[in-house]
Amino acid sequence: MAIKPIRFENDTLLLIDQRLLPNQEVWLSYKDAESVAEAIRSMVVRGAPAIGVTAAYGAAFGADAIYAGDFIEFFEEFSDVCDLLAATRPTAVNLCWALERMKACARAHADLPGSELKAALFAEAHAIAAEDEILNRAMGAHGQVLIPDGARILTHCNAGALATGGFGTALGVIRAAVEAGKSVSVIADETRPWLQGARLTAWELMQDGIPVTLICDNMAGYLMSKGEIDCVIVGADRIAANGDTANKIGTYSVAILAKEHDIPFYVAAPLSTIDRSLSDGSLIPIEERSPGEVTHCGGHPIAPAGVAVRNPAFDVTPARYISAIISERGVATADFQTSLAGLFSR
Amino acid sequence: MAIKPIRFENDTLLLIDQRLLPNQEVWLSYKDAESVAEAIRSMVVRGAPAIGVTAAYGAAFGADAIYAGDFIEFFEEFSDVCDLLAATRPTAVNLCWALERMKACARAHADLPGSELKAALFAEAHAIAAEDEILNRAMGAHGQVLIPDGARILTHCNAGALATGGFGTALGVIRAAVEAGKSVSVIADETRPWLQGARLTAWELMQDGIPVTLICDNMAGYLMSKGEIDCVIVGADRIAANGDTANKIGTYSVAILAKEHDIPFYVAAPLSTIDRSLSDGSLIPIEERSPGEVTHCGGHPIAPAGVAVRNPAFDVTPARYISAIISERGVATADFQTSLAGLFSR
Repeated sequence: MAIKPIRFENDTLLLIDQRLLPNQEVWLSYKDAESVAEAIRSMVVRGAPAIGVTAAYGAAFGADAIYAGDFIEFFEEFSDVCDLLAATRPTAVNLCWALERMKACARAHADLPGSELKAALFAEAHAIAAEDEILNRAMGAHGQVLIPDGARILTHCNAGALATGGFGTALGVIRAAVEAGKSVSVIADETRPWLQGARLTAWELMQDGIPVTLICDNMAGYLMSKGEIDCVIVGADRIAANGDTANKIGTYSVAILAKEHDIPFYVAAPLSTIDRSLSDGSLIPIEERSPGEVTHCGGHPIAPAGVAVRNPAFDVTPARYISAIISERGVATADFQTSLAGLFSR
Repeated sequence: MAIKPIRFENDTLLLIDQRLLPNQEVWLSYKDAESVAEAIRSMVVRGAPAIGVTAAYGAAFGADAIYAGDFIEFFEEFSDVCDLLAATRPTAVNLCWALERMKACARAHADLPGSELKAALFAEAHAIAAEDEILNRAMGAHGQVLIPDGARILTHCNAGALATGGFGTALGVIRAAVEAGKSVSVIADETRPWLQGARLTAWELMQDGIPVTLICDNMAGYLMSKGEIDCVIVGADRIAANGDTANKIGTYSVAILAKEHDIPFYVAAPLSTIDRSLSDGSLIPIEERSPGEVTHCGGHPIAPAGVAVRNPAFDVTPARYISAIISERGVATADFQTSLAGLFSR
């Protein structure tokens, strides 16, 4: 039912151009690693899991173009391709996770002839894409238990089908609640500057017939104070070992507001989002994007020319503000250090 | 130095069209009460003190057009004019305050011939306009004491010269700090949906050469967590007797974030903003404006057609989040019930 933003047909990767939604539905075609890297950098595709899936295909295309004398030579060039893709965006760890998995796949098939190795890498990219939707459905099954019938759910940014291989993380939990027969409604933060909430979340929920109300980011506190929000669910771009969670800029503020109003604050993310190499969130790199995203809205200037701008694309929500982290293997609660480690050993 | 958004020349009221700033500087002319009411309703002019000044001129124009047989007849028609103006926007109390003052002026001159009464009402409107800037400068003198040298000050919406008869309330305090030789810088929330921060605050501070950095509303929490904000100053549209403060939507969220980060949160407003008839903020009427302000940005659609929207234009910050209220008669701190009453009896 939910849209799939990433398709692979006739040896070609197809991405719906998320910069143009909801006004235009344009699919762009890719057949090489460099173009895929540019698609990630320029946000044709966005959302941590979707970036991971896309990068895997980019790596497969990159491998396909390598003409090497032996595996060592191949792997050297393949690593360069993966580095190029990994450098496109710094915060989402799923990107590195998918590329590490592609490298592990290559190493596991080091003894195959080149053409078979290349086929194995495409098969691995397909597997990553297919698994992502399966993980999201598992996450939905675990997470929807937390959603009461009748819940009015606030979400920030787009952690939906468009951010993943399909179904969604935060919106996947909401879809699973609907499939379980619950009547829920969604309040979507518009999510400046890129307006993922207004453009993407509102659009995909309307396509699914799930009631959605759009607000500006600065209205969430007001609705909470009026008792009009029952819980918050967001996705994640990187989660440290202690549960500190990097997600779209503004998530941290929503978490503080939720705490102040005693509203549960949930994070939904696959285990590939958890970076166990980082002890806490202060170590997560935060991308700063171009000032033009802030001084313009929908391509039109909304501020005086030349004004100074800050544009951090993500922030880090300390684990103490998070009620639960929903993964494909179950729901973790505080202490997250222990509970997240437990999910990995299940 | 700072711009005056309201001028009176050749029997004509001139308003800078704040809907078009900063891209265009257009002045519109008014000579009758109905057009002035529409200018307030459609936000050619906005900002609680500026609305009060404008409404006073609207009442004077309305009075000028009345051809009555006696004062009782005059006052009946004049009250209708004031009611029309008072109904344009529900939240800012300065509007009602200015109109009550115009009615009191009329009553005080009940024994004058009609033409002299009308002249007295124009004189009263001029007095309200002139006093507003004087009050703002007094507020600045009291408030700037709270601003440390080197302060990085967050503000929300536009409580500047453009929101007043001149100089500004929150930005007046900042201007007074600069005039006192302090080196300060401002972080301006863009303030969706109407973008008063991006369009107006950034513009007027840049014109004054005061350093300003524009952010999206959802970035304030991140900057606070990084230690990049030293205090918050905002204006107000209505303050209840206990200090609860209605101001532009999003102010409440900023106040909660400030409290969570132990950052002082100041409100700057003239005594005419204090509605002593309301015991607390729950009684302040909150205007909901058109969905189109949220689904569009700078006139362009940014959301799927037909999406449901909430668009509250204001919220109420409970007094417990407010470090101090800065008025033209001095600075009030908790308990505000007592301290605000004390300002009125000074």
